[in-house]
Amino acid sequence: MLPKAITDFLTQNRNRHLAELCELLAIPSIANVSDGACERAAKLLAEYLKHLGMTVRIIPSVGPPNVLAELHTGAHRPTLLLYGHYDVQPPDPLDAWQSQPFNPQVRGGCLYARGATDDKGQLFAHLMAIEAWQKAGGGLPVNLKVFLEGQEEIGSPHLEPFLASYRNDLVADAAIISDSEFFAEGLPSLTTALRGLAYVEVVVSGPRQDLHSGIHGGAVRNPANVLAAMVAALHDAHGRVTIPGFYNDVVEPSPEERASWERLPFSKADYAASLGVTALGGGEEGRSVLERRWSRPTLDCNGLVAGYAGAGAKTIIPAAAMAKISMRLVPHQQPHTITSALETYLRQLCPAGTSVKMEVLTTANPVLLATDSPAMRAARAALVLAFENEPVLVRHGASVPIVEMLQRMLKLDAVPMGFGLPSDNPHSPNEHFRLDQLWRGSIAAAAFMGNLAEEMGQGQGKKSSR
Amino acid sequence: MLPKAITDFLTQNRNRHLAELCELLAIPSIANVSDGACERAAKLLAEYLKHLGMTVRIIPSVGPPNVLAELHTGAHRPTLLLYGHYDVQPPDPLDAWQSQPFNPQVRGGCLYARGATDDKGQLFAHLMAIEAWQKAGGGLPVNLKVFLEGQEEIGSPHLEPFLASYRNDLVADAAIISDSEFFAEGLPSLTTALRGLAYVEVVVSGPRQDLHSGIHGGAVRNPANVLAAMVAALHDAHGRVTIPGFYNDVVEPSPEERASWERLPFSKADYAASLGVTALGGGEEGRSVLERRWSRPTLDCNGLVAGYAGAGAKTIIPAAAMAKISMRLVPHQQPHTITSALETYLRQLCPAGTSVKMEVLTTANPVLLATDSPAMRAARAALVLAFENEPVLVRHGASVPIVEMLQRMLKLDAVPMGFGLPSDNPHSPNEHFRLDQLWRGSIAAAAFMGNLAEEMGQGQGKKSSR
Repeated sequence: MLPKAITDFLTQNRNRHLAELCELLAIPSIANVSDGACERAAKLLAEYLKHLGMTVRIIPSVGPPNVLAELHTGAHRPTLLLYGHYDVQPPDPLDAWQSQPFNPQVRGGCLYARGATDDKGQLFAHLMAIEAWQKAGGGLPVNLKVFLEGQEEIGSPHLEPFLASYRNDLVADAAIISDSEFFAEGLPSLTTALRGLAYVEVVVSGPRQDLHSGIHGGAVRNPANVLAAMVAALHDAHGRVTIPGFYNDVVEPSPEERASWERLPFSKADYAASLGVTALGGGEEGRSVLERRWSRPTLDCNGLVAGYAGAGAKTIIPAAAMAKISMRLVPHQQPHTITSALETYLRQLCPAGTSVKMEVLTTANPVLLATDSPAMRAARAALVLAFENEPVLVRHGASVPIVEMLQRMLKLDAVPMGFGLPSDNPHSPNEHFRLDQLWRGSIAAAAFMGNLAEEMGQGQGKKSSR
Repeated sequence: MLPKAITDFLTQNRNRHLAELCELLAIPSIANVSDGACERAAKLLAEYLKHLGMTVRIIPSVGPPNVLAELHTGAHRPTLLLYGHYDVQPPDPLDAWQSQPFNPQVRGGCLYARGATDDKGQLFAHLMAIEAWQKAGGGLPVNLKVFLEGQEEIGSPHLEPFLASYRNDLVADAAIISDSEFFAEGLPSLTTALRGLAYVEVVVSGPRQDLHSGIHGGAVRNPANVLAAMVAALHDAHGRVTIPGFYNDVVEPSPEERASWERLPFSKADYAASLGVTALGGGEEGRSVLERRWSRPTLDCNGLVAGYAGAGAKTIIPAAAMAKISMRLVPHQQPHTITSALETYLRQLCPAGTSVKMEVLTTANPVLLATDSPAMRAARAALVLAFENEPVLVRHGASVPIVEMLQRMLKLDAVPMGFGLPSDNPHSPNEHFRLDQLWRGSIAAAAFMGNLAEEMGQGQGKKSSR
């Protein structure tokens, strides 16, 4: 239940809210550009949160700072952690934009700017909701903590130590993140699992230096050929990964979950066309496309380098060859179990006269989120109220570091409740956010807080009451 | 039979000849450096040939010029074509040289300089022989044509049209080339066959652009994985190339030739150690190392490029992947038959959702040289006389464009009679030429001319008598 005063407030303040969001979008807060823009964005958001009555700190980091805000409203109320990021992707290629990326424009009911959907616009829907509760709803129904990050688009390199250091400031009963998209237009979705990652670099070495392929070809193992054979050997003819034990810890989704995916409006032809391929493929035979992307582990070669890459011909047997290989992992695969198994397997595949070295570059645990939690119920009802459609439960093929870390480090299953649409072009030119998604998103955000207060209401011991 | 006056002359003039060779070696005639050095080297050689009584032309080219010289000594004498090249490899890395590459120095009986063995020194042995015949032997016993090239080290890109244009100036009864090495110290060799080459670039394309490997991994064919599988599929488990028809036209060496290779002083362990590998491998099972290098066709991946090659991790499915692939061909494989078969095979290997394009970058025919020709007999006897050892018949795994072109375009089987040693470091720092090889080489060169005159003496119609 959402007080009518809140929806009225949100409706009456649309113009001002849009102007305020545009002010934020005009700041080119690209994380790895050290021109002060990120600091300006952090400061603007901090001021905004202060106006909403919150206690705010800007916490310096290597690179763009973190913003932490807190508002305590009552010892018996649940505490909600809201996460968002104010940094954006670089806008290149600039030529491809119809309007300038940091000069926000409304066209056809959409707000065009870098960061409009990812993540300033989605984040702003929550700030609007907070203001509505504070100014028209009689105050927030929950204790609120806000954590805004400025390095998400560069992989949150300093997030883990920050969470460790500020654990006490972040502990909460529920967490909400709006940094994703609907499964389809009109069809809200809640994400229930994320794949993990194990990313390695493999180097096969052979002769001391590049050799003349005419003089020595046929007598010496060629590291480029050996590496190609290794990479090829990592899949069987049915698309399965051949690393011994690779599938041992994989948990299948429930029949119900899998059946629900079958009902999703998903066109293989449209999906293939959107990627520019004439046919899908590459995963395990006998699995649907959504299964392959969401609940099956995969192995991809992300890069290859060996020998001569310039124009024309150079007749060498290269001394070494390198491949970057990433594996997407699913619950309950363990990255380090998998990389160990891969390393052992690569050693077995490595023929005499060559050697192989493998380095683990990055790992992330897969995440399986609770689907029947109070926060999930609160989100589901909020989406129904705001978007007039039942949300679908989906998974996501990529890793989202904050979600994994909140679960692992704070035992907190965040609710990924995205307001974007698949057509928003995040990370691409002409990124935009549909204004109707912003308005309805702010209603969903406000309703979520009210629902959460009801679901986790008085009388239940709260983790962060103080 | 070589007149004693000639060997005496060569012995008496060693100091002057060494000084003259050093003058030539001091010129940094690197083909793709346009600083006039190649032109100076060509001019110095032209002057030298004029002093020997020859009619000389310097013929401009795109890049360093060609030098053509001619001396007609008698209508009934055979005409010999001498080929050499005056350009040298770049000297990098300079730090690794004990003395400066273009400041020739004698140390331990060896002359150190870039080009000392490849090819200025070996070429100069012939010029010394010409002078000895002219000044001490009563004049050359053959008609002589000299063709000196300045672009050999960059692959002789303009050689074929030059040979076509100057065919009449080059036609001869025999050709000699000293631009190779002994099989082992003290063991002269004559090369009887060269492998050919077919070099292609293969590009596998998939999605329109690089894709996020988390979001799409498992649903889309990965061009890097597909390319690796293709490259791997080009060999079977026994090291044989799997391209259909690949071995159809391969001619086996005679049992005698193969048996003679078995008798060569060749240590697999020493060879492996010289290349810095712990074991040999990579060719066909059941074939000796020399067979694999000399008389068996091979396939090597010379370069690989796909996706991300920088430091750290980038989680993409690359839009495309490229491989450079070269095949060494043996008599009587046809490069274009082989590349057609490869292209057809790659198309078969290419799965739905990806496409493959193959471009032929360069080809060279394999060459099988006559072993019982008058010129071969003349060379064999000359080597026995000069080096006091019977030469062995060997093959060479690489292509030598001039040899193939002389055979194809001028129907002339050149005699590759090298004076270098395997320890000379051509193309590497501290390149050198052993002075004893220079002195004996000049005797061999002089004897070769005398022997050729006897083998192809008066009364036999000569191609270029006029």
